[in-house]
Amino acid sequence: MLAIKDSVHDHIEVGGVAEALIDTPAVQRLRRVTQLGTVKYVYPSANHTRFEHSLGVYHLATRALDNLGVEGVTAERIRAAALLHDVGHGPFSHNVESVVYRHTGKYHDDVEDLVTTGAVGRVLVDHDIDPKEVAGLVRGEGRYGQLVSGELDVDRMDYLVRDAHHTGVPYGTIDHERLVRELAFVDGELVLREGNVQTAESLLLARALMNPTVYAHPVARISKAMLRRAAERLLETPDISADDLRRMDDYDFVSALRMTPETSTYAERLDTRRLFKRAVWAEHGDVPPSLLAASHAELQAFEREIADRADLPAENVVVDVPSPPSMTESTSRVVVNGDIRELGKASPLVSALRTAQEQQWRLGVYCPRSETDGVGRAAVDVLGLDIEGALVSDVRAGLNATLDEFQ
Amino acid sequence: MLAIKDSVHDHIEVGGVAEALIDTPAVQRLRRVTQLGTVKYVYPSANHTRFEHSLGVYHLATRALDNLGVEGVTAERIRAAALLHDVGHGPFSHNVESVVYRHTGKYHDDVEDLVTTGAVGRVLVDHDIDPKEVAGLVRGEGRYGQLVSGELDVDRMDYLVRDAHHTGVPYGTIDHERLVRELAFVDGELVLREGNVQTAESLLLARALMNPTVYAHPVARISKAMLRRAAERLLETPDISADDLRRMDDYDFVSALRMTPETSTYAERLDTRRLFKRAVWAEHGDVPPSLLAASHAELQAFEREIADRADLPAENVVVDVPSPPSMTESTSRVVVNGDIRELGKASPLVSALRTAQEQQWRLGVYCPRSETDGVGRAAVDVLGLDIEGALVSDVRAGLNATLDEFQ
Amino acid sequence: MLAIKDSVHDHIEVGGVAEALIDTPAVQRLRRVTQLGTVKYVYPSANHTRFEHSLGVYHLATRALDNLGVEGVTAERIRAAALLHDVGHGPFSHNVESVVYRHTGKYHDDVEDLVTTGAVGRVLVDHDIDPKEVAGLVRGEGRYGQLVSGELDVDRMDYLVRDAHHTGVPYGTIDHERLVRELAFVDGELVLREGNVQTAESLLLARALMNPTVYAHPVARISKAMLRRAAERLLETPDISADDLRRMDDYDFVSALRMTPETSTYAERLDTRRLFKRAVWAEHGDVPPSLLAASHAELQAFEREIADRADLPAENVVVDVPSPPSMTESTSRVVVNGDIRELGKASPLVSALRTAQEQQWRLGVYCPRSETDGVGRAAVDVLGLDIEGALVSDVRAGLNATLDEFQ
Amino acid sequence: MLAIKDSVHDHIEVGGVAEALIDTPAVQRLRRVTQLGTVKYVYPSANHTRFEHSLGVYHLATRALDNLGVEGVTAERIRAAALLHDVGHGPFSHNVESVVYRHTGKYHDDVEDLVTTGAVGRVLVDHDIDPKEVAGLVRGEGRYGQLVSGELDVDRMDYLVRDAHHTGVPYGTIDHERLVRELAFVDGELVLREGNVQTAESLLLARALMNPTVYAHPVARISKAMLRRAAERLLETPDISADDLRRMDDYDFVSALRMTPETSTYAERLDTRRLFKRAVWAEHGDVPPSLLAASHAELQAFEREIADRADLPAENVVVDVPSPPSMTESTSRVVVNGDIRELGKASPLVSALRTAQEQQWRLGVYCPRSETDGVGRAAVDVLGLDIEGALVSDVRAGLNATLDEFQ
Repeated sequence: MLAIKDSVHDHIEVGGVAEALIDTPAVQRLRRVTQLGTVKYVYPSANHTRFEHSLGVYHLATRALDNLGVEGVTAERIRAAALLHDVGHGPFSHNVESVVYRHTGKYHDDVEDLVTTGAVGRVLVDHDIDPKEVAGLVRGEGRYGQLVSGELDVDRMDYLVRDAHHTGVPYGTIDHERLVRELAFVDGELVLREGNVQTAESLLLARALMNPTVYAHPVARISKAMLRRAAERLLETPDISADDLRRMDDYDFVSALRMTPETSTYAERLDTRRLFKRAVWAEHGDVPPSLLAASHAELQAFEREIADRADLPAENVVVDVPSPPSMTESTSRVVVNGDIRELGKASPLVSALRTAQEQQWRLGVYCPRSETDGVGRAAVDVLGLDIEGALVSDVRAGLNATLDEFQ
Repeated sequence: MLAIKDSVHDHIEVGGVAEALIDTPAVQRLRRVTQLGTVKYVYPSANHTRFEHSLGVYHLATRALDNLGVEGVTAERIRAAALLHDVGHGPFSHNVESVVYRHTGKYHDDVEDLVTTGAVGRVLVDHDIDPKEVAGLVRGEGRYGQLVSGELDVDRMDYLVRDAHHTGVPYGTIDHERLVRELAFVDGELVLREGNVQTAESLLLARALMNPTVYAHPVARISKAMLRRAAERLLETPDISADDLRRMDDYDFVSALRMTPETSTYAERLDTRRLFKRAVWAEHGDVPPSLLAASHAELQAFEREIADRADLPAENVVVDVPSPPSMTESTSRVVVNGDIRELGKASPLVSALRTAQEQQWRLGVYCPRSETDGVGRAAVDVLGLDIEGALVSDVRAGLNATLDEFQ
Repeated sequence: MLAIKDSVHDHIEVGGVAEALIDTPAVQRLRRVTQLGTVKYVYPSANHTRFEHSLGVYHLATRALDNLGVEGVTAERIRAAALLHDVGHGPFSHNVESVVYRHTGKYHDDVEDLVTTGAVGRVLVDHDIDPKEVAGLVRGEGRYGQLVSGELDVDRMDYLVRDAHHTGVPYGTIDHERLVRELAFVDGELVLREGNVQTAESLLLARALMNPTVYAHPVARISKAMLRRAAERLLETPDISADDLRRMDDYDFVSALRMTPETSTYAERLDTRRLFKRAVWAEHGDVPPSLLAASHAELQAFEREIADRADLPAENVVVDVPSPPSMTESTSRVVVNGDIRELGKASPLVSALRTAQEQQWRLGVYCPRSETDGVGRAAVDVLGLDIEGALVSDVRAGLNATLDEFQ
Repeated sequence: MLAIKDSVHDHIEVGGVAEALIDTPAVQRLRRVTQLGTVKYVYPSANHTRFEHSLGVYHLATRALDNLGVEGVTAERIRAAALLHDVGHGPFSHNVESVVYRHTGKYHDDVEDLVTTGAVGRVLVDHDIDPKEVAGLVRGEGRYGQLVSGELDVDRMDYLVRDAHHTGVPYGTIDHERLVRELAFVDGELVLREGNVQTAESLLLARALMNPTVYAHPVARISKAMLRRAAERLLETPDISADDLRRMDDYDFVSALRMTPETSTYAERLDTRRLFKRAVWAEHGDVPPSLLAASHAELQAFEREIADRADLPAENVVVDVPSPPSMTESTSRVVVNGDIRELGKASPLVSALRTAQEQQWRLGVYCPRSETDGVGRAAVDVLGLDIEGALVSDVRAGLNATLDEFQ
């Protein structure tokens, strides 16, 4: 039994299959994948890794299983899945996930190829655990999949607290000890016991506040868009495949960006923090539906056209169309007066938060600081945004003011 | 210049008029008035006092004034008001405030008689500060009154963080440094600068979560109702007036309760934590409007009648009808795209939180543990509640389960 | 099984005999006994109680017992002792302990009469636990007594961390999780396992830094001396015995001081923080050995004589002769290269800390602020101190400067 | 004026020359240099960087200058030096510093070439600051150099607290706010004011406890020795000079280690945490003086000879001879009874800590886990250690037990 010191949970005891898994290359690699990627450009202390997060998720899973009375090989399998749930992350975690997905069809929680083979596969089999079942848990399948990847999973309990600790933004400070204690299985559903509507709400609220302040802070979004664009260029070179990219760590990726001529300018900009700025920042209602549904290729064509009109090389314009906001916690289940209810039914906050998230949604067009005026005008035209050209810089002026944190 | 060590804000520098005020009996008395009264029956670590809170409010006011560029005697006056804002609290703070108010017409922020006289009055005059203006600030009057007592006041910034620190409930962990930095006066209104809708929401959400979990936890409410009832009995004795009560500290009050025959049973119950339990716990929709509007005398008559029917002495039944929930933060002002807006207009969360608070509202009828069945049935009848008698104990059963924290 | 929220250890689970004990009057009384007494005059946030500390000690004992593999009725007995270890404290904890001892022969850890009788005794017997064995554990007797009251006991692990949390002084921040994990029994001795010399040193160092900064801060010592003097006067009145005093809580005691004519001046001084000041502050080498060995009666005679010479009433002069510094942690045991060694042998820090503590020792003579010169001169004469009269105020000047914290 | 959120100091305000310096490549590079290098192999959360530390040092310098009343261009120069004090660090900070020094003659605080040229030099000159004076401050020269690099510098105040925050080891939790407040210049010397002997001791003690637990933890030492050895091999290749190495960031360095055939095995071992283990771990008294004084070339020859005898390739044996322990804090100055004294004179702890550090000193010989027996025996012979061959593994057994943290 190892005892590992963690800055969030203090001592984490690691035993059984987890003690063997921790030494595999796939898990050790997570030491070199930062948890929040480009968020560090806003919050300089946010350098924590998927490794410490994975240990934290393992720790909370262990506590939850103890409270739920789950034991034996079932518990070992779930603990293995908790420790392994992030081995599918590429470099900078979510930052290049969509690029990898477009080429490989794999999101970060699609880990079957990674846990059925190599050292991880051998360790699991040696401990009488079926690697495919572990992969299923990571995808959220089955009764216990909810604990690893679901509305009330220990994953988000750890990341909210951990990201708050490392960014210094207190909004993620949930009562994770209480959450883990109040979980129960009722009719095969993972729920929070009676008296925990506020406990469930607090999880939702923490994410609702961390989202605009941390995860989707404009500076983090801009640098992430630049990184994603660089990753796309990298995959256009003959030497690096999407599968290679998926298995890189942050060192490999940054090193490849620096050494590849097509991407070295992005690397240099990111290294010296000469980030693009917003040329357009448009609300949901101002964006034509066709644009919201545009394919990756169509967006690339738009970018080229905007760049052309503004007389710039194509790589200097990035159009960033976020997905519609999700709120998976809204279907988390709580017991109210003896009945299981969806939180969305039990709490008026859920629909309000959905509305708030929709209001916060913004389409962004980014380019070098000196080009924002020209690119802004071109983008409004090309994208068919419902903003008058003259308004672009005004709106931008107002909104740049929101970047109080280290823009 | 003093430097006082505080468990929340670390070193607090105290100078000028505040350094002289701190030594007055009125301020020193706050060392002996607990901040959260009966909340300690749920959260045993919640023994902090109005004194340390007042220092914290003074500290945040000083920071805010520095950021706002307010100086000179105006700043001194506001700092004095910040330090003095709670000298009007009776023992156990809010716990007996309504009793004092019924007899004296004074709430805790009505401090004119306390700051114009005695040592406090002398110190203020010696520092060329008009005590009446200080009393006005404490009531929230004028441009700067908003900073001391308003929707964005430093009072709530301190108490949320402090109460979280001492109860162990993390929901109050707001970003008070950011709040204090982002305050501005625009057209005479205290507002949060552009880009702070979430900052304002976070204040609201923190209170919305702390409320049911801490301030209005059922156990805190029951013991508070017992204490209030005891205070009423005390005032029926010839020796103690409401003005006396208002100036007592916790020691005086507990001592009086113990030594007065009419209240010693309450004192003994509270000392040994043999608290009343819930006989009825009714939602807003189940309570007849006439009951919601009932006077204190009418409620007392109801209590006697319920007690009679249940064959108990009157002091063993307490009917607890809370005020409708307030949400003053909803009118706090934020700058959005250059305009000042009420948060209630800028954030869909505000009305959702109002709905949530209404849903959490409960009328309570409390009595000794062994009598809850009889008192429950009698109360439903006497109060005309829309609950079938048979349901009372069931509902109660469900709801008692919500008292996971140290009932 | 209860779960109680604590500001230091988060959720504390209370079950078995402890769940029954917690509701006894003797344990509930600890809610009204402050942990650090007059330390609050220096650190205003230090209002925590023996109740929360007792829960913390119980919690750490439970963790330690789990790690040590101790189970069954033995573990229950130790947990009971942990929860009950402080029921013998009088009001303001250590502040009046010496007064109680002089009259009753009982220190706070002499609890046999308290745990063998009343509700506590009944609960223990109901759980097949011998109350006398519990009292023995509280006195530190037997193999497991070391865990409750010894050099490596969980008592000091809790109080160092808790006192740091509530005063804001970080020096007590030890690694209590590690300490509890590294305990072992070797040959019947409680030791820290191999590799923990620094862990043991850290405990020692934390106390060495907390001592002068918190526990023996001059302001805390002065107010404690005043309180002790007041307690002595109280016992000279016919109505209150030392046994009464020992069973009072803080409310009873403060109330008695206020209402008793002989002590009301002390009460008023403490309430308004008009504390005595130092007239003399003498190092160990300057104090004649006879004075160090003087009886309580002899010291009282000195006080009267000093007061006479300075033309003051006797109650205005307090002579405060601290005991020689102890350092029980120096005999804590650690395993080094397979052998059990006393920390004093394994660490050169121990004797250095002893020397440091001796250097910090001071005899104090206290009196009202306006009288320090006269009392200082008289005291030097009467007590035969090796300081020239003229030096008293100079030395005092230098040393008063050390009271940077809120004097 | 920027406000940057920091996980340790909350909001850090950056203005003036610092706001311009922060955007220079030399400072942005520090985002990619980890503060504690291989300590992350023991404490997985220790991924913080020199960038956030530099901001923290800048912040504490600003606070100290405010308290000291230093203003104008002098203050700007010192703040610039604080922000720039670590730009001379190579990758992994101290881990390869000795290698760089051997080839370039430059330690990390030798930054004249870095601050007089390029963007940093231009910014300084633009703000009327002489870059050479800044370099002097970083070397600790002059009156104010003590604040940047001296016994009481703000550098160590930040790193102790920050390293505690990120490792989870609480021993570094000093009272940095108090330290910064109590600094004063007396006769040109930076001192701690009267009454701060304990404050000074606390700084010393924090480092004395952090040293063996964190900075010199055996696992951190072993991996650091491997990294240093890899750096030496890298410099033997034709493509990379010591000056190149000095300017690399962590990404460059890891990437170079991976791609260079001579070092890729080290890279792979470090990536998968297959670290060397201790073959010998010898106390100071057991090491011949000649070995303590051996040159780098002599040590390399010993390594080759040990490897030969154990029939291993030379890169599989590392001999690690630490410098004698330093304790610069011992000459920090405190005011005692009005005189300035060195802490080493005022506190008996200083010499005890020196003794303790000498006792903790160990020579290490490291090699792959399977080879420790053979290498151990060979090393005892070759190095002339005063340990019998048979004892090596026993001693090792005992000492490996000390690696309780994640070996």
